Amino acid sequence: MLPQLKVFFGNSNPELSTEICGHLGIEPGQRTITKFSNGNIKVKIEENIRNKDVFVIQTASEPVNDHLVELLIMIDALKYASAARITAVLPSYFYARSDKKDEPRISVASRLVADLLQTSGAHRILTMTLHSPQIMGFPRIPMDQLLATPNLINHFVQKGLTNAVVAAPDVGSAKESRKFAIALNLPMVICDKERLGDLEEVMMKNIIGNPQDKDVLLVDDEILTASSMIEATKILKGNGAKRIYAACTHGFFTKKAVDRMAASPIEEVVTTNTIPQQNNHVFKKLTVLSVAGLFADAIYAIHKGKSVGDLLEHSKI
Amino acid sequence: MLPQLKVFFGNSNPELSTEICGHLGIEPGQRTITKFSNGNIKVKIEENIRNKDVFVIQTASEPVNDHLVELLIMIDALKYASAARITAVLPSYFYARSDKKDEPRISVASRLVADLLQTSGAHRILTMTLHSPQIMGFPRIPMDQLLATPNLINHFVQKGLTNAVVAAPDVGSAKESRKFAIALNLPMVICDKERLGDLEEVMMKNIIGNPQDKDVLLVDDEILTASSMIEATKILKGNGAKRIYAACTHGFFTKKAVDRMAASPIEEVVTTNTIPQQNNHVFKKLTVLSVAGLFADAIYAIHKGKSVGDLLEHSKI
Amino acid sequence: MLPQLKVFFGNSNPELSTEICGHLGIEPGQRTITKFSNGNIKVKIEENIRNKDVFVIQTASEPVNDHLVELLIMIDALKYASAARITAVLPSYFYARSDKKDEPRISVASRLVADLLQTSGAHRILTMTLHSPQIMGFPRIPMDQLLATPNLINHFVQKGLTNAVVAAPDVGSAKESRKFAIALNLPMVICDKERLGDLEEVMMKNIIGNPQDKDVLLVDDEILTASSMIEATKILKGNGAKRIYAACTHGFFTKKAVDRMAASPIEEVVTTNTIPQQNNHVFKKLTVLSVAGLFADAIYAIHKGKSVGDLLEHSKI
Amino acid sequence: MLPQLKVFFGNSNPELSTEICGHLGIEPGQRTITKFSNGNIKVKIEENIRNKDVFVIQTASEPVNDHLVELLIMIDALKYASAARITAVLPSYFYARSDKKDEPRISVASRLVADLLQTSGAHRILTMTLHSPQIMGFPRIPMDQLLATPNLINHFVQKGLTNAVVAAPDVGSAKESRKFAIALNLPMVICDKERLGDLEEVMMKNIIGNPQDKDVLLVDDEILTASSMIEATKILKGNGAKRIYAACTHGFFTKKAVDRMAASPIEEVVTTNTIPQQNNHVFKKLTVLSVAGLFADAIYAIHKGKSVGDLLEHSKI
Amino acid sequence: MLPQLKVFFGNSNPELSTEICGHLGIEPGQRTITKFSNGNIKVKIEENIRNKDVFVIQTASEPVNDHLVELLIMIDALKYASAARITAVLPSYFYARSDKKDEPRISVASRLVADLLQTSGAHRILTMTLHSPQIMGFPRIPMDQLLATPNLINHFVQKGLTNAVVAAPDVGSAKESRKFAIALNLPMVICDKERLGDLEEVMMKNIIGNPQDKDVLLVDDEILTASSMIEATKILKGNGAKRIYAACTHGFFTKKAVDRMAASPIEEVVTTNTIPQQNNHVFKKLTVLSVAGLFADAIYAIHKGKSVGDLLEHSKI
Amino acid sequence: MLPQLKVFFGNSNPELSTEICGHLGIEPGQRTITKFSNGNIKVKIEENIRNKDVFVIQTASEPVNDHLVELLIMIDALKYASAARITAVLPSYFYARSDKKDEPRISVASRLVADLLQTSGAHRILTMTLHSPQIMGFPRIPMDQLLATPNLINHFVQKGLTNAVVAAPDVGSAKESRKFAIALNLPMVICDKERLGDLEEVMMKNIIGNPQDKDVLLVDDEILTASSMIEATKILKGNGAKRIYAACTHGFFTKKAVDRMAASPIEEVVTTNTIPQQNNHVFKKLTVLSVAGLFADAIYAIHKGKSVGDLLEHSKI
Repeated sequence: MLPQLKVFFGNSNPELSTEICGHLGIEPGQRTITKFSNGNIKVKIEENIRNKDVFVIQTASEPVNDHLVELLIMIDALKYASAARITAVLPSYFYARSDKKDEPRISVASRLVADLLQTSGAHRILTMTLHSPQIMGFPRIPMDQLLATPNLINHFVQKGLTNAVVAAPDVGSAKESRKFAIALNLPMVICDKERLGDLEEVMMKNIIGNPQDKDVLLVDDEILTASSMIEATKILKGNGAKRIYAACTHGFFTKKAVDRMAASPIEEVVTTNTIPQQNNHVFKKLTVLSVAGLFADAIYAIHKGKSVGDLLEHSKI
Repeated sequence: MLPQLKVFFGNSNPELSTEICGHLGIEPGQRTITKFSNGNIKVKIEENIRNKDVFVIQTASEPVNDHLVELLIMIDALKYASAARITAVLPSYFYARSDKKDEPRISVASRLVADLLQTSGAHRILTMTLHSPQIMGFPRIPMDQLLATPNLINHFVQKGLTNAVVAAPDVGSAKESRKFAIALNLPMVICDKERLGDLEEVMMKNIIGNPQDKDVLLVDDEILTASSMIEATKILKGNGAKRIYAACTHGFFTKKAVDRMAASPIEEVVTTNTIPQQNNHVFKKLTVLSVAGLFADAIYAIHKGKSVGDLLEHSKI
Repeated sequence: MLPQLKVFFGNSNPELSTEICGHLGIEPGQRTITKFSNGNIKVKIEENIRNKDVFVIQTASEPVNDHLVELLIMIDALKYASAARITAVLPSYFYARSDKKDEPRISVASRLVADLLQTSGAHRILTMTLHSPQIMGFPRIPMDQLLATPNLINHFVQKGLTNAVVAAPDVGSAKESRKFAIALNLPMVICDKERLGDLEEVMMKNIIGNPQDKDVLLVDDEILTASSMIEATKILKGNGAKRIYAACTHGFFTKKAVDRMAASPIEEVVTTNTIPQQNNHVFKKLTVLSVAGLFADAIYAIHKGKSVGDLLEHSKI
Repeated sequence: MLPQLKVFFGNSNPELSTEICGHLGIEPGQRTITKFSNGNIKVKIEENIRNKDVFVIQTASEPVNDHLVELLIMIDALKYASAARITAVLPSYFYARSDKKDEPRISVASRLVADLLQTSGAHRILTMTLHSPQIMGFPRIPMDQLLATPNLINHFVQKGLTNAVVAAPDVGSAKESRKFAIALNLPMVICDKERLGDLEEVMMKNIIGNPQDKDVLLVDDEILTASSMIEATKILKGNGAKRIYAACTHGFFTKKAVDRMAASPIEEVVTTNTIPQQNNHVFKKLTVLSVAGLFADAIYAIHKGKSVGDLLEHSKI
Repeated sequence: MLPQLKVFFGNSNPELSTEICGHLGIEPGQRTITKFSNGNIKVKIEENIRNKDVFVIQTASEPVNDHLVELLIMIDALKYASAARITAVLPSYFYARSDKKDEPRISVASRLVADLLQTSGAHRILTMTLHSPQIMGFPRIPMDQLLATPNLINHFVQKGLTNAVVAAPDVGSAKESRKFAIALNLPMVICDKERLGDLEEVMMKNIIGNPQDKDVLLVDDEILTASSMIEATKILKGNGAKRIYAACTHGFFTKKAVDRMAASPIEEVVTTNTIPQQNNHVFKKLTVLSVAGLFADAIYAIHKGKSVGDLLEHSKI
Repeated sequence: MLPQLKVFFGNSNPELSTEICGHLGIEPGQRTITKFSNGNIKVKIEENIRNKDVFVIQTASEPVNDHLVELLIMIDALKYASAARITAVLPSYFYARSDKKDEPRISVASRLVADLLQTSGAHRILTMTLHSPQIMGFPRIPMDQLLATPNLINHFVQKGLTNAVVAAPDVGSAKESRKFAIALNLPMVICDKERLGDLEEVMMKNIIGNPQDKDVLLVDDEILTASSMIEATKILKGNGAKRIYAACTHGFFTKKAVDRMAASPIEEVVTTNTIPQQNNHVFKKLTVLSVAGLFADAIYAIHKGKSVGDLLEHSKI
C-alpha cells in the first residue's frame, strides 16, 4: 500500500499546476501563503501530510527569488510536518543558465540551488529541459529530467517542413538543435554569435552551413530577451533564408523580447507553459504547447515506482 | 600573521556598509552584482580573496528575498574562490520573527535561514538584537549577537526621563523592555494585546501596571506596521500617560507605519540604521542612531581573535 | 500496511512509560540494561525490531546524565539493529533551560542534546512543554511538542476560581501564565524577580499589577528548588493576596523545594508525572495529573500518520 | 607564515610529477606504495606532514581504477596524518566523460569521483581541460581548472596556418574547437557523426561548413581510440581538405589509436603529457607539449594564495 | 506490502552470486557492465528498480580495485535510479586486513571502504567473517556479519578428529581458533610467528602448548600466500604433530600458495566460495564449502525484516 | 606564527591534568563548571579562546556518564566560542571495551562516543592504550594513541625478571602480553578463561604453555573487578608458578578489586594514573607510574606539528 499522493504548488505558475492536478484527478493540497509587509513569506500547510508522498510545483518565473525562497520555505514546512517524501517539481529549473564557472570567482548558482533544495528537505527533483545535461550531476538526490522536445518536434512535423534547415542561434546550442534536425531529417546550420560580457546583447559574426532558399527552424532551450534569435534571424535572412520559425522550451520573454519578435520576420514562435504565458496572449505569433500531461504522467510514475525513462522513450532522439 | 581582512557587501544597506568600512579604515571589496532581465542575480568577486578573512554585510531590508538570495550567491562565490573564512554580517537577521512553530505545519524560517547560510559556505554569523535569544541555537556555526540596547538607553539617559515608566507593547516583549527599566531605574507597565491571526493588525485588551501621570518609554525590538505601538499608545493615553517615546533596534517602518506614527501622539521614535532610513527623512519625529562603529569594532575583534563579549560588557544590563 | 509499533523505555520514568504502554494496549519492548561496575551502561535489545516503528521513552529525571547517555546508547543500538524509524519520546526535554547564550562562552546545551539525539540515530522527537518554544528550531528532525496546559487549566476550571488573578513568578514566564489568564478569563500580575548569577536563589524586587484581595494561581513551566515560587508567594502575600495555588508541568522538586512548599502558605501544588513523583507522596499539598493518555494518543497518531496538531486543538489557548 | 608546501604523487604519471617538482624546486614527498599479492594497495607516508599544505598528483591513466583507489587511500592516509590542507591534482580528471545521465539508470561517475575525493579527505581539486565545464559544479570543494588550449594554439600559431579551417569532429566538441578558430582567426567546419551505442566506433554522416582546398586543424579534448578523428579525416578529405593536423589535451591513445593515426593521412598529432606518452615514442607523428610548468605555477599560486585565474588570463580565448 | 526484492551482482564472483539467486528462486537483476578501452567502467541498470529493495553482490577478488570501483559505480547508479534500499553484499569484505593504524601515517583502508560505500549510496552491508570484529564499528550504516565457522566446524566434526589439537598460526588468530577448539572440545596450541615488515613472508619463532603425537587442525580467517600456514606446519611437525588439516573462510590462494600447500604435508585444505575457486580445481587437497545458502537466507531475512542473528544462533560458539 | 596553546580540563582527573600543565609550563585554562540541583551541568569558559589551539583533558573515571556529558558540553562551549582547533585528550577512552557487536542488537558504544565527540566539535582525539587498535578506525577525525607499554616494561626491566614467563589472563589479551614477552625476551603462557555472560565474573578452564617454577608477569590493558586476574593467579599457582606480578595501563580498580588483589598472592600491581589512584593509597602493593610527561610531550608535538609517532618510536615493540 503506497503512501497517499499530494500535490502542492507555490505562486509561480498556478495555471500549469492546476492543470497538472486536473490530469492527476486530485485536488491541490491546501496551503496558505502570506507575504507580510516586510516582504517575509509565510507558508502554512493546511492539511495533515504525515507519511504522505508530496510533490511541490514551483517554476523559475519572476519574481524569481521570491519564488525560490517561497519554495524552500514550503519544502521546509513539509519536512518538519513529517512528509514521507518530498519531490520538488521545477518545470523550469532555477538559475539553470548559471551552470559553469566560465569566469573566476562566480557562483555556479544552479549547483547552489540543488544544495539549497536538499538542505530544505527535498528528496527528489523533477524538472524539464535543463540548460545543460550535466546539471543532473549537481544534486545529491535523484533527479528526473523531462523533455519538451517531442512536443515541439511533433508540432513542426505536422506543419510539414520539407525544403528546410534547422538552425542553432549559436555554437553552444548546436547539440539541442541537432535533435530536431535528426528527428525532422533536415540539414543544420549554425550561427556563430559573439556574446559581449554580461550585457545580454549579442553581436553576430558568422554562419556555418548554408540556409540559401530554405525555410528555417531556429531552436534554443529558452528565450529571454530574444536578442540571439533576432540576430540569428538577420544573418539567416542575409544568407537567403525564406520563412523562419522559432522554438524553445522555456519562454521567459521579456517585454522587449515580445516587441522584438513581433516586429521581426519570424513567422511563428512555439514554446511551452513551463513559464506562464497568460500575459503574452496579445502576442499573436505565439503558440503555447502544454506540458501538464507529461508532468502529470511523470508525477504518477514516480509515485507508483514506475519508470520515468519509459515516458521519455519516444523522445530519445 | 593573520590572513588579510576583506569586507564585501550586497545591495541591502550600502550606507551602513560603507560607514562600517570607513570605521575599519579599509576599502570595501570589489564585486559586481548584476540582475538579469529574468530576475536572476549574478555576483562576480573582482579581486583575489584566496586565504583571506572575508566578511559579507547584508541586512533584511526589502526586497528581502532578493537580498537573501544575493547573500547566498555571494557567499557561495566566495567559498569556491577559496576564502579562508566567511562571516555573514546581518545587521538585521533574515526572517527573525519566524522563530517558533506556534501553529502546526509552518516553517521555523529563521532556522532555515541558518541552514541556508551554512550550506552556502558561511563559517560564522554576526548579527544584532535577535527577536529571541534562542535563535543563537539555530546555526551549527558560531554566531555573535550585538545589542543596540546601550545606544538606545544612553539616548534616553541623556534626555533625563525621571517621572516615567517603561512600557512593553505586549507580554512577549516584556523581557526586552525590562532591560530598559532596570538601566533607567524606572518601573514597568505591560500592554496586553491580542494579535488576530496573521493580519498584522492587533486589538488591545488590557494593561498590567499603572502609567497614570507618567512619561512613557515604549520599547520593542522592531517596528514594522506600528500597529502594536499605536494600540499601546491609545491604551497608555487612556490610562493617563503623559508624553510617549518609542524605541526599537530594527526600524522596518512601512509607509503606513510612518503615517501612523506621524499622526500619533508619540513625541519621538528612536531607532538604528540596521535597516536603511534614507527614505524616512521626511518623518520628523525620527532619530536614527548609527551602529556602524559597534559593527566595525566587532568585525575587528573577530578578525583579530579578540573577545566580542568584551564589547558587550557595558551593555549587559 | 504499516510497520509494527514498538515502545521501549529506559530507567528514568518506568511508571509513566508503563502507563503509556497500557493506554496503547501493548507490551513494552524487551531490553536489558546493565550498569557495569565502572559505570558503563550496556543496552541489549532482546527482540527483533527490524523495519519496525520504534518509540523510546526517557525523561530528564535524575541522575540526568546517566539517563541521557542511556538514551543515546539505546537509540544507537536500535539504529544498527535496523529499526525503520526511531522516535525519542522525552516527557521532559533534557537540558531544556540551557536554551540561549546569555553569557559568553557557554553551551546552548538543549541544542547540543538535539544534535546528540540525531547523531545517535533518532528520526523524530516527541516532547512536552518546552522551556521556550524556540527549542523546536534546534533539531534538524521533526519534533512534536505536547502541552500539559489544558490538563492543568481544567483542574482549576473545576475548582471554580473566580475572584482571582493569574501570577507569573517573573517577567520571563509571563507568556506561559498569560495562557492560563486567557483560558480562565482572569487578570494577570507579574512578579519581577532578580536572579543573582547561577546560585539558583532569587531576590524579589517588584510587582506589576495588583493581587489585592484576590486568590492567586501562580504558574511556571517547571519547579526545581521552588525559590522563585516562594519569593513570589511572599510578595503576593505582601500585596494582599488571599489563597495561593501553584501549577507547573515539570515537577523536578528537590528535597529543599518540597520542604519549602510544605512550609509555605501555598494551598496546593499541581504538576504532572513527566518527572516521577513517587518519592513525593508524603508531600500532602501535591496533586499529580497524569499525561500518559496524551502521550499514548500522540504516539498512536505519529505511528498512524494522523495529525498531532489535532490532539492539541483543544489546548490552543 | 605559511604552512610548508609538500607534493606527493602516485604511480600514474611519475614523469610529469617529477617534472612539476623540478619546476617548484622541491623534492617529492617520501611515501611507500605496496601492492600485495591480493591486489590490495598500501600507502605509507614516510615523513611527518602535520599542518602542512599537501598536494597529491594522480592522473587517469591505466590501470585507471588502481590509480583511483591508490589516490583515495593516499588522501585518506594524509588526512589522518593531520595534513593542514590536501589538494588533489588530477592532470586528467577521472571518469571525465561520464558527466551526464544520457541514458536511464547509469551513474554520473565523474560526480561520484568528486564525492569519493571529498569523502577521502581532499579539500581542493586542481585539474586540466574538463570534458565539460559543468563538472566544476560537481564537487562541494573548490576546484581550479587549467587549460592546455594556449599551449596547443601557440604551437599552431608558430606553424603559421593561414589558408585553413578549424574542424570539430562532432557537434558536441564544436565549442572547444571554436576557441581555436577565434584564436587563430580561422573559419570553422563541424563534422556530424553518429555514435552507435557504447561501441566506441562511430559512423560519419555529414559535414556543416566547407573545408574545400583548405588545411584543417582537427580539435578534440581527448583522443582514445581515434575513431572519431579517423572518420572526420575521411569526410574532410572527401570534401576536398588538404593537410590535416590533430590536437587534443589528453592523449589516452590505445594501441589501435596509434596504429590508425599512423596509417592515416593526418600529418601531425599534438597532445600534452597529462597522460604519460613514453610508450608512444615510436609514433613519429606525435608532438608532446609539457604542462608541468603550468601545473607548478598553479600549485605555487594556490599555496601562496595568489590568483589561479591570473595564470589563465592569457588563455581566456 | 514489502517492496520487491532484487539482487544484482558485479563481475567478482558470478558463480556464488548465481547460486545465491538460485536459492532465493529469483532471476538476477539485469545490468550491463562495459569496460572501455581507457579502463573506465560503465554500469547500466537495465530494468526499473524504483522503490525496490536491492542487494548488490561483490566480493574482494582480483582485480580487487576494479571490483571495488565497479561496486561503487553500480551502487551510485542504483541510488540515482531511486532504489528504496541498497544493501552491499560483500562475501569477502574489501581491504579487511587494513583494519588498524599499526604504523604511523597509513590508511585504515577497511574504514575508508565503509565510507566510500556509504558515499555511493549503500544503506546496509552484509558480509562474512571479518578479519576483526571491530570492523563492524567502521560504517555508519547497519552491517550484518555472517560466519562460515559452523560450516567449517561441521566438516571436521564429521571427520571425527579426536586425538587432536586446534592450532593458531599466530597469536593474533588465537581468538578465531579458540572457537574451533571449544566446538570440537579439543585443546589449543599457538604458533608464535614474527612477520617481517610488509614482505608477506614470515619467520617462525616459537610454539605455545604441545602438539606432540596429535592430529592438528590449523585455522585462520583467510589464506593468501600460505606462508604462515607453511611455517606453522613446519614447527608443528618439528614438535611431533601427526596429520595436519587447514581451514579458512576466505581462500585467496595465490599461485604460490597453491604450489606451497600442494607440496606441504598438509592433508586437506578446507575453504568456502566467498572467493571464486574455479581456477584451483587442479589443487586436489582443496575442499570448497558453499556459503550460498547462508547468504540467501540472510538476504531473505533482511528483506522480510526477520532477525539475521537467529540465523547465527547455531553458530554462536 | 602558531595559534596560542590552551589546556582545559574537566572534573575526571584533576591531578593528572594539573601535572600535564606543569610539564607544559602553562596555567590551565580558566573555566567554571556548575552542577545544578537537577543534575544539569553548566560549563563557562572564563577566558577568550578565539582562534586558539585548545586541548581538553577528560578521562573515563566514575561517574563516567557525568564526565562524558561534561566533556561534550565543554567541547560544545569551546566550539561556539570560536576555538581554532579542539583536541579531546582522553587518557582512558570512554566505553573502550564496548568495541564490537558480539551479540545482536547492542551498541558499539566506543564508536558512538567517537560520533558524539565529533558532533560536539572535537577536531582531534589523543588517547592511550585502546582496548583494541581497531578503535582508531571509529572516528572520522585524526586520533593519536599513546602507549604506556614502554613505561610498564621499563619498570620490570629494572626489576630484573629472568627465570620468568609473561602470562595473558585470556586468549583475547595474548597480543598485548606478547609485546611484553618480546621486550623482556621471555616465553609466554596463556590462561584460557570462559567469561559467563555479562556477569563480570569468570571461570577459568585451561592453560596454554607452562609456568612451572617460573616467576610470572600477568599483563592486561585494564583491571576493573580483577576477577580475571585472580582466576589467572589461581591457575598459574596451580600449575607451579612462583612469584606473580600484575601490570595494566588503566587501573579502574573497584573496591572489590582492591580487596581481592590485597588478599591474593600477587606481589605487586603496577598501573598508571590515567585513572585517578588517590583513593587507593591504602593498597600497599600498588605502584603507580605517571603518564603526564608523555601526554605533555604529545600535546606539545601536536601543537607544534611535530610527529607523535616519533614519541612512540622507542615503544614500537
